[in-house]
Amino acid sequence: MNVQPRTLSGFMELLPGDQILMERFMETLRETYSLYGFTPLDTPIIEASEVLLAKGGGETEKQIYRFTKGDSDLSLRFDLTVPLAKYVALHYGELSFPFRRYQIGKVYRGERAQRGRFREFYQADIDVIGDGKLDIVNDAEMPAVIYQTFHRLGLERFQIRVNNRKILNGFYSMLGLRQQAGEIMRTVDKLEKIGRDKVAELLVEFGVSEDKAGEILRFIGIRGENSQVLEALERYRGKDELFDQGLEELGTVVKYLGAFGVPEENFAVDLTIARGLDYYTGTVYETMMTDHPEIGSICSGGRYDNLAEYYTNKQLPGVGISIGLTRLFYVLQEQKMLNGEAGTAPADVLLLPMTEELGPAIALATRLRGEGIRVQLYTEAKKFKAKMNYADKIGVPFAVFLGEDEIREDVVSCKDMVSGEQTKLDFSGTVARVKARLEEQVRQRVIR
Amino acid sequence: MNVQPRTLSGFMELLPGDQILMERFMETLRETYSLYGFTPLDTPIIEASEVLLAKGGGETEKQIYRFTKGDSDLSLRFDLTVPLAKYVALHYGELSFPFRRYQIGKVYRGERAQRGRFREFYQADIDVIGDGKLDIVNDAEMPAVIYQTFHRLGLERFQIRVNNRKILNGFYSMLGLRQQAGEIMRTVDKLEKIGRDKVAELLVEFGVSEDKAGEILRFIGIRGENSQVLEALERYRGKDELFDQGLEELGTVVKYLGAFGVPEENFAVDLTIARGLDYYTGTVYETMMTDHPEIGSICSGGRYDNLAEYYTNKQLPGVGISIGLTRLFYVLQEQKMLNGEAGTAPADVLLLPMTEELGPAIALATRLRGEGIRVQLYTEAKKFKAKMNYADKIGVPFAVFLGEDEIREDVVSCKDMVSGEQTKLDFSGTVARVKARLEEQVRQRVIR
Repeated sequence: MNVQPRTLSGFMELLPGDQILMERFMETLRETYSLYGFTPLDTPIIEASEVLLAKGGGETEKQIYRFTKGDSDLSLRFDLTVPLAKYVALHYGELSFPFRRYQIGKVYRGERAQRGRFREFYQADIDVIGDGKLDIVNDAEMPAVIYQTFHRLGLERFQIRVNNRKILNGFYSMLGLRQQAGEIMRTVDKLEKIGRDKVAELLVEFGVSEDKAGEILRFIGIRGENSQVLEALERYRGKDELFDQGLEELGTVVKYLGAFGVPEENFAVDLTIARGLDYYTGTVYETMMTDHPEIGSICSGGRYDNLAEYYTNKQLPGVGISIGLTRLFYVLQEQKMLNGEAGTAPADVLLLPMTEELGPAIALATRLRGEGIRVQLYTEAKKFKAKMNYADKIGVPFAVFLGEDEIREDVVSCKDMVSGEQTKLDFSGTVARVKARLEEQVRQRVIR
Repeated sequence: MNVQPRTLSGFMELLPGDQILMERFMETLRETYSLYGFTPLDTPIIEASEVLLAKGGGETEKQIYRFTKGDSDLSLRFDLTVPLAKYVALHYGELSFPFRRYQIGKVYRGERAQRGRFREFYQADIDVIGDGKLDIVNDAEMPAVIYQTFHRLGLERFQIRVNNRKILNGFYSMLGLRQQAGEIMRTVDKLEKIGRDKVAELLVEFGVSEDKAGEILRFIGIRGENSQVLEALERYRGKDELFDQGLEELGTVVKYLGAFGVPEENFAVDLTIARGLDYYTGTVYETMMTDHPEIGSICSGGRYDNLAEYYTNKQLPGVGISIGLTRLFYVLQEQKMLNGEAGTAPADVLLLPMTEELGPAIALATRLRGEGIRVQLYTEAKKFKAKMNYADKIGVPFAVFLGEDEIREDVVSCKDMVSGEQTKLDFSGTVARVKARLEEQVRQRVIR
């Protein structure tokens, strides 16, 4: 030994049981995204710096992992949106639009090390990219994908909050505050944190009249059922073209929720949502865990006008959402919301040969695997007690024994490691017993 | 537009159809490895340089992507074995041994750019790590995993070649050539390339007597069925302890092949296999495609005595195999061996609403998805012909239409995009038709 092994701070490295839950998590995302016709994409983690940083500037650039190798100036991707823009511009002629892709991959940001902050983390993104135009129904479908994703993961108490940037920008235009719209939204965004009075104060501080500040607070204070919010917004119609357009769009998104299978209680129109400032131009989404608002949004996104302006002159509008997977997994772990019952063992059966000659035990393992049962063959020279301890530690649901008696009688001894119940059944009886347990396990969701 | 989009040379970036086959490829690996009780692992792509390069020196070090960020000296992993060694040493107290893990992940090597050479590529590794000792049956199981993996991928014409380094080292000891064993193996390794005579010449050149060179060529020339090779090796027994141990081990590996379900024709004992020089200490594996020997080994590995000597004083022997996934996929693509019939479309059904009001079409999409059918809803304002072109281009197997007539009659129009056959069936009839096709698709393997 000459080096102390360690893993860098800000880099998640899970123990086997948790990793299995993480795999299940990602599998659920892949399955759900596929159901909605999104195609998987995989792009390099390293890109040429001039390509990755084409947009330039901003907070992100300081965090980039950037280095040279030979003559090349290289950077690690810091999100999955810029690589998508590059991909779509580069392969434009070979793609069909709308182009719907999902990507689950690691991204890198050299953030200050902090509990629950990661420098390497998975993002799970879906986007629909149009060529020139993109129908608003794509915006209406996003809440369905969000709902199905979390529903299938096992989360039920969450709310998808939706707004439309055109409504906000249009409203601020009506007040003659279009230039200040960005700053106003940044301030209004703090509403839950600092309260109404403080927001009003800040607004007045940078030159909004008290009257208008009051109007702004009234506007973003519109609450209620979706239909009530839309009705309240109707009163502003006809005064600004952009506002009217946004209202139409939001109306369409809300209208088709039911047909898309999104329950009312998991969705709300929320006029306080703005999501950043430059990028989004229409619908915007956030997703809050009802019992853990302190965690912030677990799935966000929105509509943008032009995905790849730095790489092409084509107009490529899109709409997408993103999950910060590593952080979400970390939070679920912290909150003890990961469901071990969904299975954390590397195998369904630990097979313990009880004879010197291993042929029959190996053949049994091969047959069980042929039935789709995950089998670990354990042949180390250990005492029986050590073997059972091992079975316990890896959390395998069943231990299977094959000794002279079992071989002669053409049966299998199979012990349920939880209940302790041991059966001596023929092959198909044993398979049925194991599979019944596996079916229970599959029904368990990752999040409890 | 201000930057020409490009992807770095040596970095694979697939088009959607190929990416779907790649995903299926990786899914097959995950499933197969899981059947054998291997647990998934995911470690950071970035590690501290002093940790990653603990072993130091060698050809690899020059190829490393190494850089600083703040005060940290960082490197991108160049294989999955060093991170495994670190992981096992670091988490030793929390793991159970034997520890069986698989890992499919990207690794980085700054190789000279060349057709079919990648700087970022996936490796797919499995390893079993023992604590102090590890039973030889683990070595016997590896060919079964290799066989099942390629069989499930659809490849049938391949051969797993196995040898044991103890047999080679023992044999060279018998000849009094133990010190030169490394150099001899390197030379013998070139047999297929340069021929017997040239090998003999080279051996003599660095001081092996002509007699002994002849003996070496006779030895590595032992050919035949596995039993014949083992029988020929028996004649050398009793002269060197290490040789005898290697012969025992090889005998065990061969003995259990049948029980492990590996067909004779996919396996051969091959005394010319040595696999590198320092690392492996016992069983070694290579896998050759029968019709493409020029590609070299597509799955290799072996037994080693001490996984993590740089990180811990514990003795951790192991056995493992590795697939260079990106290169293999590239070769299969080049050889036109990827099977498009396994499905390359992002969806099973493209749903085209034929009415202004989209509620019924959206509800139909939701119901189909509930049945596990991947549906893309197409609502862009395009002419019918453009829509059908889109369906053709993305290769979707079915287009489904829902117009006033269908809604009134409570049926669905469904067109098979290959045969052109169009049906008007109720919901469950349509689902059955689509699912029958999907079952055909699932039966198709990735490799033809």
